[in-house]
Amino acid sequence: MQVMQVLHMNGGDGETSYAKNCSVQDKIISIAKPAIEEAVLGILDDNIPESFGIADMGCSSGPNSFRVISDIMNIIYAKCSNLGRLSPEFRVMLNDLPCNDFNAIFESLPSFFKKLKEEKGSGFGPCFIAGAAGSFYGRVFPRKSLHFVHSSSSLHWLSQVPPALNSSASTALNKGKIYISKSSPQSVLDAYSMQYQNDFSLFLKSRGEEILSGGRMVLSFMGRRTSDPTTEESCYHWELLAHALMSMVSEGLIEEEKVDSFNAPYYAPCPEELKLEVEKEGSFIIDRLEAFEIDWDGGVDEAVNNTLGALSRGQRVAKTIRAVVESMVAHHFGNHILDELFRRYAQMVGDYLSKTQTKYINLVISIIRKG
Amino acid sequence: MQVMQVLHMNGGDGETSYAKNCSVQDKIISIAKPAIEEAVLGILDDNIPESFGIADMGCSSGPNSFRVISDIMNIIYAKCSNLGRLSPEFRVMLNDLPCNDFNAIFESLPSFFKKLKEEKGSGFGPCFIAGAAGSFYGRVFPRKSLHFVHSSSSLHWLSQVPPALNSSASTALNKGKIYISKSSPQSVLDAYSMQYQNDFSLFLKSRGEEILSGGRMVLSFMGRRTSDPTTEESCYHWELLAHALMSMVSEGLIEEEKVDSFNAPYYAPCPEELKLEVEKEGSFIIDRLEAFEIDWDGGVDEAVNNTLGALSRGQRVAKTIRAVVESMVAHHFGNHILDELFRRYAQMVGDYLSKTQTKYINLVISIIRKG
Repeated sequence: MQVMQVLHMNGGDGETSYAKNCSVQDKIISIAKPAIEEAVLGILDDNIPESFGIADMGCSSGPNSFRVISDIMNIIYAKCSNLGRLSPEFRVMLNDLPCNDFNAIFESLPSFFKKLKEEKGSGFGPCFIAGAAGSFYGRVFPRKSLHFVHSSSSLHWLSQVPPALNSSASTALNKGKIYISKSSPQSVLDAYSMQYQNDFSLFLKSRGEEILSGGRMVLSFMGRRTSDPTTEESCYHWELLAHALMSMVSEGLIEEEKVDSFNAPYYAPCPEELKLEVEKEGSFIIDRLEAFEIDWDGGVDEAVNNTLGALSRGQRVAKTIRAVVESMVAHHFGNHILDELFRRYAQMVGDYLSKTQTKYINLVISIIRKG
Repeated sequence: MQVMQVLHMNGGDGETSYAKNCSVQDKIISIAKPAIEEAVLGILDDNIPESFGIADMGCSSGPNSFRVISDIMNIIYAKCSNLGRLSPEFRVMLNDLPCNDFNAIFESLPSFFKKLKEEKGSGFGPCFIAGAAGSFYGRVFPRKSLHFVHSSSSLHWLSQVPPALNSSASTALNKGKIYISKSSPQSVLDAYSMQYQNDFSLFLKSRGEEILSGGRMVLSFMGRRTSDPTTEESCYHWELLAHALMSMVSEGLIEEEKVDSFNAPYYAPCPEELKLEVEKEGSFIIDRLEAFEIDWDGGVDEAVNNTLGALSRGQRVAKTIRAVVESMVAHHFGNHILDELFRRYAQMVGDYLSKTQTKYINLVISIIRKG
């Protein structure tokens, strides 16, 4: 299964779209903002380039696609204004997989530029935004073309399900599971860890070629605090999705073999793994590395929830997960199971959250390209 | 009417898509190929840059989006191979309006890269392709970032219908017309000519800022040979579309006022106008300027036509025009008139072509950025 070909956020702006169901990603972006500000100002400390290259890896489509980019340009603009200088030319590259809804991004560009002009006037920019489609586990941009790279809620996705998991022996070992869990054998845990190391190392190497010396990256993604990869904070949302799938198997709505052959290309690393990979790859040094707790529904306040039609917590979480994994689930099981699957999932998530305090762990790492 | 917002080639690859109905544009690309080759080699004469910036303005979506880009990279690759040198890094920017189907382009990227790798091996590239959405009548790319710019079958589209045409007085003057014709009053001809001058001059100024000194552009678009803007070779395909619309008015299928308020943002210049604008704007010098005749159906050979289900010449021409203007016509008149309109249009085109030798005139201009 070529996972990267089918993994994309739901496009458009309908009820199940990513654009309408990204409260968790919103929260994560807010949390990373101080690290982004510090990193961007750190780049400007050396000197203010005439043309500033920014890339967002895994930009998706929706309000978040422009939000971080705007924040970054605002930081630079404010700094230049303070110094009585003109802001640099901004070269913004938005990256995601070829199946991402770039049309939706491009269609919202005219209003984005209009708003920029109204808010900032003529002293800002010019700003050039382009879309670059391709896996970030490989080269995407020209050599030494970027000053700052951002990625949020994307790097926990592996380039593929670990190949070892596709063998029938491993399928048997991972029976009824779609991701690692307490009952996963060591060989499955090792396969995921190895895939993660290969992918993240390739990501660092690729960006290392694209980022200028002294340039920086702020990356945030799902992780865990402990070295145990089967801790509930890193994988229980998958465990519950497996439960929902298996409950449909028990009623004959899905074939069991279909569940056995479905594996999520997902890995939530711990800080030590991350540090080790950055040091091993060698292009970057770590400036900052933090872990944050995030509520499964992004901590939606009740005023916002009322506009959502007062959904239960389980329903809210199910919607955020559905917007992200639907394409992958639909590709494997077909569209027809989606509504029923996520109805059951919402129920199970609600039950689970009423009994535990489990939260997601979001890691934020800020690294500097060596000279 | 914000024309640029609604003018886009039909997306996807269905029966009425641009991708399946671009025989005229194919022909035009073939005709411009020698000029492109000469221009690209001219750039390399000075020196071979480490990183070569290429842009295609009005790239559309379909097989043509990559065709010229491939040709350009092949020319550079062959030249470098002859000199025993590695080819440069290619930075390719594909530009079109935000409503263009960029998703279709990006989805075909993986197979494009796969083919490149198979054909060229590892000595080629690397090649980075990005999409930049926005009107080319204004800045699209960073300062001095490009070596070669190409545009085919796009610059005959104006940024808007000349504003003077939207006044009720002008509507009355242009009654039952959708473009200039033998019966257009001088004020209408002047308004189109003025809009063309403003637009083309802005195009040159914008590209002038983006193209490095010594860089080149090859532009090809519909034109005319004589100074008379109402010559049949430059506008009779619009005249026939107006006839088809008016025939539907006479049967009460369309309101006459709708036709009176519909104007095509199209202008087919003559070589003298073009020369004058390039000289007046001042960023470029003209290296080459030629005019070519093109059959209205692109000169489809019978073998190809048989695979199209042996369409009549009128039907073939109607399909090529429909793929290009459908979005604009549908925006103004609604989708419901399309099939009937283009059925009548095919008939009228067939009748006309059986009686005349009228061909399109395609102008190809090659210009060099001054030092």
